Amino acid sequence: MSYWIWYQGDFERWHAMKQNFSRVERGLAWPAFWKSEGIRNRIALSKEYVLEEETNFTVYAHGVGFVLVNEDKYPFESAITCGPGRVKVTVHLGRLDALPSALVSGDVITSGPGWISDDYAEKLPAGFSPLYTDEEQDPAEWNYSEKEYLPVKTESVCGGTLYEFGTELTARLEIRASMMRLRGMTVYCGESRAEALAGKECYLFWKPEITGFGESATGHCPRCALRYVFIEGEPVELTAVHQYVDFPVRTAFACDDAKLNRIWNVAEHTFRLCSGIFFLDGVKRDGWIWSGDAYQSLLISRYLLADPGVEQRTLVGLRGNDPMTGHINTIVDYSLIWVLGVKTHIETFHDGEFLRLIYPKVKSLIEFCKKRTDVHGFLIGVDRDWTFIDWAEIDKDGPVGAIEMLYYAALSAAADLASMADDQEFENLYRAEADRIRECIREHFWSQELGAFIDSFTSGRCHVSRQTNLLAIRCGIADEEQTRLVSANVLHSDKVPPISTPYFQFFALDVMGQLGEIETVLDVVRSYWGGMLDLGAVTFWEEFDPSVTGDAQYGMYGDPFGKSLCHAWAASPIYLISRYLIGLEICEDGDDRFVLTPHLELFGVLECTLPVGENGQIVLSWDGRTLRVKALSVSCKLRVWGQEISVNNAAAVEVQLP
Amino acid sequence: MSYWIWYQGDFERWHAMKQNFSRVERGLAWPAFWKSEGIRNRIALSKEYVLEEETNFTVYAHGVGFVLVNEDKYPFESAITCGPGRVKVTVHLGRLDALPSALVSGDVITSGPGWISDDYAEKLPAGFSPLYTDEEQDPAEWNYSEKEYLPVKTESVCGGTLYEFGTELTARLEIRASMMRLRGMTVYCGESRAEALAGKECYLFWKPEITGFGESATGHCPRCALRYVFIEGEPVELTAVHQYVDFPVRTAFACDDAKLNRIWNVAEHTFRLCSGIFFLDGVKRDGWIWSGDAYQSLLISRYLLADPGVEQRTLVGLRGNDPMTGHINTIVDYSLIWVLGVKTHIETFHDGEFLRLIYPKVKSLIEFCKKRTDVHGFLIGVDRDWTFIDWAEIDKDGPVGAIEMLYYAALSAAADLASMADDQEFENLYRAEADRIRECIREHFWSQELGAFIDSFTSGRCHVSRQTNLLAIRCGIADEEQTRLVSANVLHSDKVPPISTPYFQFFALDVMGQLGEIETVLDVVRSYWGGMLDLGAVTFWEEFDPSVTGDAQYGMYGDPFGKSLCHAWAASPIYLISRYLIGLEICEDGDDRFVLTPHLELFGVLECTLPVGENGQIVLSWDGRTLRVKALSVSCKLRVWGQEISVNNAAAVEVQLP
Repeated sequence: MSYWIWYQGDFERWHAMKQNFSRVERGLAWPAFWKSEGIRNRIALSKEYVLEEETNFTVYAHGVGFVLVNEDKYPFESAITCGPGRVKVTVHLGRLDALPSALVSGDVITSGPGWISDDYAEKLPAGFSPLYTDEEQDPAEWNYSEKEYLPVKTESVCGGTLYEFGTELTARLEIRASMMRLRGMTVYCGESRAEALAGKECYLFWKPEITGFGESATGHCPRCALRYVFIEGEPVELTAVHQYVDFPVRTAFACDDAKLNRIWNVAEHTFRLCSGIFFLDGVKRDGWIWSGDAYQSLLISRYLLADPGVEQRTLVGLRGNDPMTGHINTIVDYSLIWVLGVKTHIETFHDGEFLRLIYPKVKSLIEFCKKRTDVHGFLIGVDRDWTFIDWAEIDKDGPVGAIEMLYYAALSAAADLASMADDQEFENLYRAEADRIRECIREHFWSQELGAFIDSFTSGRCHVSRQTNLLAIRCGIADEEQTRLVSANVLHSDKVPPISTPYFQFFALDVMGQLGEIETVLDVVRSYWGGMLDLGAVTFWEEFDPSVTGDAQYGMYGDPFGKSLCHAWAASPIYLISRYLIGLEICEDGDDRFVLTPHLELFGVLECTLPVGENGQIVLSWDGRTLRVKALSVSCKLRVWGQEISVNNAAAVEVQLP
Repeated sequence: MSYWIWYQGDFERWHAMKQNFSRVERGLAWPAFWKSEGIRNRIALSKEYVLEEETNFTVYAHGVGFVLVNEDKYPFESAITCGPGRVKVTVHLGRLDALPSALVSGDVITSGPGWISDDYAEKLPAGFSPLYTDEEQDPAEWNYSEKEYLPVKTESVCGGTLYEFGTELTARLEIRASMMRLRGMTVYCGESRAEALAGKECYLFWKPEITGFGESATGHCPRCALRYVFIEGEPVELTAVHQYVDFPVRTAFACDDAKLNRIWNVAEHTFRLCSGIFFLDGVKRDGWIWSGDAYQSLLISRYLLADPGVEQRTLVGLRGNDPMTGHINTIVDYSLIWVLGVKTHIETFHDGEFLRLIYPKVKSLIEFCKKRTDVHGFLIGVDRDWTFIDWAEIDKDGPVGAIEMLYYAALSAAADLASMADDQEFENLYRAEADRIRECIREHFWSQELGAFIDSFTSGRCHVSRQTNLLAIRCGIADEEQTRLVSANVLHSDKVPPISTPYFQFFALDVMGQLGEIETVLDVVRSYWGGMLDLGAVTFWEEFDPSVTGDAQYGMYGDPFGKSLCHAWAASPIYLISRYLIGLEICEDGDDRFVLTPHLELFGVLECTLPVGENGQIVLSWDGRTLRVKALSVSCKLRVWGQEISVNNAAAVEVQLP
């Protein structure tokens, strides 16, 4: 098998740039507002062989250059004979307009693992992907899977025709009509009926590009999010070609609660739509790669796609080049959360090769952060750094408690990653710094008087937010007593403003789960996500406020259709149900890497299959009396009814309700 | 006037990449073997205005994005109305495949000076060029001037036709022939007759790209160096479309020595062919931008094109991005020589704006070098650094004398530039380090016993090379006594191997000139360059050895046609004649910036015009009795026959031979 190869990480950076430049809003392109992390235009790809006999190979390449075999130069796309003996093959490549790449095809000499990529500054293992093995491909282009959809409903309305597809799609449109008609046509796409009918108020509308002639021309609109399409005039023949990344199905969920089943299914559908080359925030908007959103996707995907490819592409694409010149997405917290994401990924897949590649980037990120600390060692925002945390009101004066808590968590995660990468020196260094910061946080941000962590110790306002206190627990800052106080004084207090964004609701419910308040988690999942279902949602929304009615639900950020109706973080029930209700925990290391602690008391019947790592699966079947658990290509520890049972790759384990 | 604008420096880096990727050798593309310094794909271009009244403007752009006017977004290519009052205009741009750029066209709001470019890491003044002011242009493409040439001679030979053009060109070919004939055609280009007839041995041959049909098709070959073209079979209609950068003529030279006149003219022709977007080493080969070659071109061009544009493009293109990851062209000496080049440019043009932009790059280069010094503070090559100096035999063990001398010169130049940039702190720092290094060099590399500088003090071989000793004088290491000894023991000694490369011959003759050995300079110019003329050269060669005869002259680097017959450094007579014979010196600063000390004793008659800086010219006329000097748009000091006369922009000065 020959793989297309490229400079390590440039494939991800190239496609991340493309992705971040692809946003369009009401006819205006909106490339993401942070530093684009470019690629190397000149690379050398090489491998040394000791050949026992003569062999042949051919090099295919995107770019200009030549093949160097020891001292001899050869062109691309012609058979090269070499050996026996020691042979060094180097593909020299330059490409101005896109990612340079090469494919070396031969019996013995064949590109893929073991090749080195060099940009004349740093040599790294060449990048490759199982998705690119065909000589006709160009890794600068993503090959989406495609599926045609026809409208399931057509309606004459507002002097035109409204076409409805069965669900939300990420599709390019093909419109068969006369050249004449196509020339004057505007195609309005909507996630909602109201949006498609809103004319220039809707987010995505297009003047189709026309191919063909006369009466049998075709209009083409670019790939975009749509469920409804409105076109003025009589009906035309319309096909939506859905373009997607075809992640295999590895998960199933069914229980005796029909609403929960529906929530799971819509969440899965939502998440798959938002997962492509990268984990995206939403399908209509932004289509940018955000570190905060990606982190939640990493936790959700652990129980759904469990695909290392999309995770690694996302982590590499987010992080960019060294040295860092600014925070990821310009957001201080998002740099820190990226480190948590790396740890999450490594925990899920235990991929030592990827760890070796990404760990230096963790180090340089921490190094970058260290340069932005104050006298306490607290991380502070400088220049154009954006301290986000959440849209809610948080006191961001001076060092921000929530940031320091994430900084502690990132340092701890970096220490864990250093340990896995056998970098004892930096493990000690990060661990010591983390411990110091934690003490410093407890000293400055804990208010014994309020029994809570405050947002800022410099403003004098002693503002208490749910966000800061949730992070204090989730990041491991709060000790047992502080956790008890925070739970009482903040999490279960009506005086502290509630979480209003689903982004932070993820963390809130995660903490509820960690604190063992499983029924609260289930209740919120059923009411919040069930509430969207009750309003006819076919995908879950960026945000949901049950008190808002009618088309007003579609508004956000002061925009009547600003809300994304298919948003990755809204798929969090997958995570919450898997992690806290089914109780599958994926731990860092050791014998107890996979622990299953199902809350069977919540289910009358439960049939579910969850992925574990890249190849494993855990199959659980519960009929109210008997629990059957199978572990495929993996082993796990089952904890149920006071028992602890090892489930191995061999036979199923059966346990009766005591 | 509206200018296309881009991120500062990216225009140069983009075209430098293109240039360095354009080399082709016997059908194989050969992108330059060093790190390509990429461009920013996502930029923001902005300017703030305080408008007295309402105004309109339109933005043209290459890339996707939008225009932000205060808080409002607008598309490209549509009229935008704003004001009165404070208005901030920002063009947000992303472009994946080439340099992003924008042109803002309006009565008041118009792109060019004063605009800021931002890549979300560093804000710099936006780049622009007087060459790009038309909304139809794309700064990612260079607009060459074109001139058609028809063959001046056609010859039936070797079963085909040899076409000869009047001189060497950088031309694309258009071949009118039948589709049938074009399909089987190979077009062999040569700088020499022998090369064009050498079949696949010649450097540049092409399969033409075909447009049109049947009997009236056209074959197209890409822009390349050629003087001769060979095509098998009967003659075809052939046009060479010479593509060049049209630098105005600002120089004239004529004296009573016909050979010297011819040398000047051929040198000028050679230099113009090698000067395009950048100063190139040669036309056929390499077509890469080399710092060492560019430095000599900067000194030559001072007296010929005196075009700040090509100089700045070359300096910026060579230097690349910060932080530096390797030496310029991978060569330690070339990084140092680049700093000398910057100083040369600033001396010539006194461009404070460019100094402000380039000075930080000088600093980061010196910083990069400082990280590669040993216990003595000597600069040493590490990893893949190439210590070049010259092709000749030089003892490169341990710290290399020639490198340290250049390092001293670069530190001194950096100190001078720091002074011009009002950076007192770094001026002192660089000056102190330079002084320290000079003493250290004298201590370790001077051999009192040999009365010469040795190449290396670590090898124990005490090898004495002409190169090291020439640099000792040229860089200001040798004191008066050492200079005297070096001159006697090395420069005028037959025991030390002669300089064999024209690259170092430049420095050798420059030192001869500095030492006042003007007649030697003249003799070498007449014999070496005259020797090439005697062999029919129409452009000057990369190298010339009078002892080699016939087609063997075309060989170099072990390749029968490896020698470039049109090479920039071979145009050095322009510099040598102007600087030492006509005696026009351009100094760093002060009242005596331009000093003319003509060696009239060498000329019976001399009529010449030399450029001075961007706009000035000095016109000299000498008939053997009377010297007339005019200074246009400039003033200079004339030193002749013991007199010192100020020549101002007003009237001509006339002096009689005493």
